[in-house]
Order: sequence, then structure tokens, then C-alpha cells
Amino acid sequence: MTAEYFMVLGLLGVAFFAVAGALLGYEKNISGFGVVVVATVTALGGGTLRDILLNKPVFWIATPQYLYSTYGAVIATIAFIRYLPRVNNYYFLLVDAVGMALFNIMGIEKALINGSGMVVAITMGVTTGIFGGLIRDVICREVPTVMRSEPYASACLAGGAVYAALFSLNVDYIWCILGSFFTTIFLRLGSLHWGWHLTIFRKKDFRDQSD
Amino acid sequence: MTAEYFMVLGLLGVAFFAVAGALLGYEKNISGFGVVVVATVTALGGGTLRDILLNKPVFWIATPQYLYSTYGAVIATIAFIRYLPRVNNYYFLLVDAVGMALFNIMGIEKALINGSGMVVAITMGVTTGIFGGLIRDVICREVPTVMRSEPYASACLAGGAVYAALFSLNVDYIWCILGSFFTTIFLRLGSLHWGWHLTIFRKKDFRDQSD
Amino acid sequence: MTAEYFMVLGLLGVAFFAVAGALLGYEKNISGFGVVVVATVTALGGGTLRDILLNKPVFWIATPQYLYSTYGAVIATIAFIRYLPRVNNYYFLLVDAVGMALFNIMGIEKALINGSGMVVAITMGVTTGIFGGLIRDVICREVPTVMRSEPYASACLAGGAVYAALFSLNVDYIWCILGSFFTTIFLRLGSLHWGWHLTIFRKKDFRDQSD
Repeated sequence: MTAEYFMVLGLLGVAFFAVAGALLGYEKNISGFGVVVVATVTALGGGTLRDILLNKPVFWIATPQYLYSTYGAVIATIAFIRYLPRVNNYYFLLVDAVGMALFNIMGIEKALINGSGMVVAITMGVTTGIFGGLIRDVICREVPTVMRSEPYASACLAGGAVYAALFSLNVDYIWCILGSFFTTIFLRLGSLHWGWHLTIFRKKDFRDQSD
Repeated sequence: MTAEYFMVLGLLGVAFFAVAGALLGYEKNISGFGVVVVATVTALGGGTLRDILLNKPVFWIATPQYLYSTYGAVIATIAFIRYLPRVNNYYFLLVDAVGMALFNIMGIEKALINGSGMVVAITMGVTTGIFGGLIRDVICREVPTVMRSEPYASACLAGGAVYAALFSLNVDYIWCILGSFFTTIFLRLGSLHWGWHLTIFRKKDFRDQSD
Repeated sequence: MTAEYFMVLGLLGVAFFAVAGALLGYEKNISGFGVVVVATVTALGGGTLRDILLNKPVFWIATPQYLYSTYGAVIATIAFIRYLPRVNNYYFLLVDAVGMALFNIMGIEKALINGSGMVVAITMGVTTGIFGGLIRDVICREVPTVMRSEPYASACLAGGAVYAALFSLNVDYIWCILGSFFTTIFLRLGSLHWGWHLTIFRKKDFRDQSD
């Protein structure tokens, strides 16, 4: 049962992230097949790092269905992108947020199954949630979203904290997932919609920021 | 027999990629020892990722000869670069293409030996072929070649498809290698020479591309 | 005894690197929680890569104390940064150099314990010493320090050579550590103070360097 939930979440997660990668590639006008590379790296990066860190078989090698889901989502995005009413940032932010929330949960769960404590598990969730998007932004030469637009990693962290709280109350598995998922999504999309932002510290003197 | 071929391909592959990395470092005027770092990362990055993904001992730790080949190629490039008639992009593109074609084959083979199916193996070949050059470009703050100049990953993919086709026909091992190698090289260098390019999709409205 | 030294070095190393990461995040005015991400990646990146390469359990998953040390150093930096007399590059360069020297030693030692030869061990030391700072610079879109300001990787290399020399003389463990540590620190900070730099090759013709 748990394994089936996990698989469905994973297949959805890679598909959402693959679409987010393809949309950014389209937006950045990346040459030909490079779009497929960006989308694949985005979709598989976070989960691959998680499996390497936990020294488990890499998920898309052990279960090639994840690879097919990725390639299918990329091909569908390429095929249908011209029929979308208006290709803008909106789709990108939505699929990126959903992918992040799903991967966050998968990172926490795989760490817990592996016997890690909750601090390590939440760290693994944030890592899994943000890493694919981080390398996507790095290879596309964007300022990484995680550096630029908070809550992002902190939305993962909050989703992880909700998971941990519900888990420690012995709530049924599905509610841990749903609670974490909607917390992350709500914080992430809410921040974009209502302009929330998280400030930890701010420089006293604003010098010119040349990049 | 197979293991010997594999070793020779590998030693050549790392040497070619080390030269490509050193040439880019020279071109970008990278400070001192940083050139050695760039060249080493380029030479060892793709194969290291492959071994980590397949959960095999990392090749240059298990077999330090790969490390000596890398360092030797870097030192030779540094020593002889001033005697080259004209240091330009040509050498770089050539050694980069050869390195990519060799690593593509090694990625496919190591995945097949590991028992992976053909879709995973071809994905592993492309990953191994492009990853060293990708991190080289990222740390040198270049637009990654794979994003900018296609066919590149698609030349790996085509080389992998030729390997898979010959392999499924039970052709002798050496022909799989040669067929794949020359397909990749031909597509990559042909595209540079004759200006082929692969367009998957193109934006309808060209907005300003600020980077 | 050795294991205790190792643990203390490690806890110090991650704390120094976490501070360096948080300072760079502050300097670059990174949004909110992104500072924690940068600091964590800087602190844990090098050691994580080392453990993955050597196929050992990742240190902060096996021993969560490293994670607590990282988070503690980040929180302390965020809390006290406003009371520092003047936040400038000086603190950053100092903690970065100390972190690098400590990680260099830990990389060498873990490779030697793993049975690797000295060439592989020194390579592992340089990798462990520079990798955290390298990905920190990449995700902050800085020119990586290792490309820009030598001696850096070469200071690690020299520290590694001193370690190897003392080790081969059967000198007591603590002197290997101290000799390596002060060699790296002296070369790195000396180069910054007295303006030493290492030139391996220089382009004959300075063309326009567009980045």
C-alpha cells in the first residue's frame, strides 16, 4: 500500500518537474535537444541526489517507469506548448510548486524508511524538493529560485515540519502526505499570490549590487 | 578482451576531455592551478557520475591510472600549448567531440554490464558523455554547450541508438563501438562544419532575452 | 583517539564553512531562507562528495551532530552578524581558508583509511577542500574562487604534500595534521596578504574577454 502511494507520488513528481524544466527551457529559448536535457535533469536531479545520499539504488535505474514518465511529460509539453493560451510564468510556478511539494514528501519518507531521525529526514526532504530546480536554474544561468524568491526552501521546511508533527501523532499515512503537500503548496503559491516574503536578515547598507 | 578495450577507451576519453578542459581554462584565462581543477573535473566528471549512479566503485579511485592519464594530459597541454600554431576553438571542439563520443560508449556499456535495459543504458551514455563538459561550462560561467549548440546531446543519443541497433543484431563488440563512435563524431563535427542544427521548438513571440 | 580528532576537526570544519556560506549569502543579499541553503551546501558539500566517491555512509546522515553543528553556526552567524564591527571580505576569507584546510586533511585521511594510494588521497583532499566553496560560488553566481584567486586549490595541494611527506616519515598523527593545516593556511592567507599569485600559463594575445 505504502509502496504504491510512493510510486504514484513519484511518477507525478517527476512528470511535474519535467514539465517545469521544459517550460523554462522554452522560455530561455534553449537549443533543440537541450530542452530534453534540462527537463530530465530537473525531473530526476532531486530524487537522484536523495538516493545517492542514502546509498540506495537510484530510483530511475531500479524502476525505469520514472524515466518513461519523464520522457513522456517532456514530449507532451513539447507537443502541446503551442496550444496553451499564453505561455507564461504562471504554469511554470504552478508545476514547479507541485513538483517540489511531492519530492519533499518523498525525501522525508525515504529517509525515515532508511532509519534516519527527523532532523535528517526534513533536511533530506528539502534537499530532494529543491535540488532538481536548483541545478535546472544553474545550467540555465538563472538566479536560483531558492536564492531569489522565498518562501521556497522554507515552504519545504514547513511542509516537512507538518509531516513530522502528524507522523509523531501516529496519524494515518495519507494525512501526513496531504498535510505536508498542502502546507508547502499553500505557502509557496500564497507567497506568489499575496506577495509574502521571508526576511531573515537584510544588509544595513545597500551597496550597488553588481552581478 | 572486453575489459582491455574498455580500459583503452577510458584512458583515451579522460585524456581528450582533460585537454578540452585545459584549453577552455586557457581560453578563459583562468588563474594558475584553477586550470588543472577545470581540466580534472571535465575529464573525470561524467564517468564519476556514471559510477555513482550505478553504485559501482568510482573508476579513478579503483584504477588510479585514469588519474595519471588525466594529469599527464593536463601537463602536456600546459607544456605544449604555446607551440600550437594558433590556439583557437578548433582544437577544443575536436577533442571535446572525441571525448564525448568515447564516454557515451563507456556509459552505455557499463550500464548494460550492470544489467540495465536499453532506455536506461542510452540515458546513461548521454549522461556520461555530456556531464563532464556541462560542469566544466558551469564552473567557467559559460552557457553550457549542450544548451547552446545542438546536435550535442542528440549526437550522443544517435550514437547510442546505433550501438543499441548493432548490439541487438549480435554484431561483434568492436563494430558496436566503431559504429557508435563515428555516428556521434560525424553528427557533432558535421553540424559544426556544415551548420546543421536541431530545432525542437521555437518561441512564437521573441521577447527580449535578458540574461 | 584518531576517531575523536577526526570528529572534532569535522565539526569545526563544517562550522567554519557554514559561517563562510552565510557571510557570502549576506554579502549577496540572498532572500530569506536561501542563506541557510547556501550555508548548508557550503558546509556539507565537500565532505558529502568525498563520502559518495569513497562509497562510505554520508557523514551527516550517519552522524547528525555534523548537521546540528552546521545549523548552529548558521543561526549564530545570522544572530551576531549585525554586531560585527564591519562586515567585509576579511571574515569571509579567513573562515573559508580555515574550513578548506580542515576539509583538505579530512579528505586525505578518509581516503588513506579507505586504502587509497597517496595520489588518490591528495586528489580527494583537494576535492573535499574546494568542492563546498565551489558549489557555493556557482549557486551564488560568483566566479568560483578556485578559478579566480590562486593559490587556493594549490594551497590544498601543498598542504596535502606536507601531510604525505610527514606521513611517510611515520611522524605522529597530530603533526601530520598541524603541518598540513598551517601550510594550507599560510599559503592561502599569505597570498591574500602579500599578493602572491601562481601563474601557470598566460595567454600571449589578450583578446577581449566577454563573459
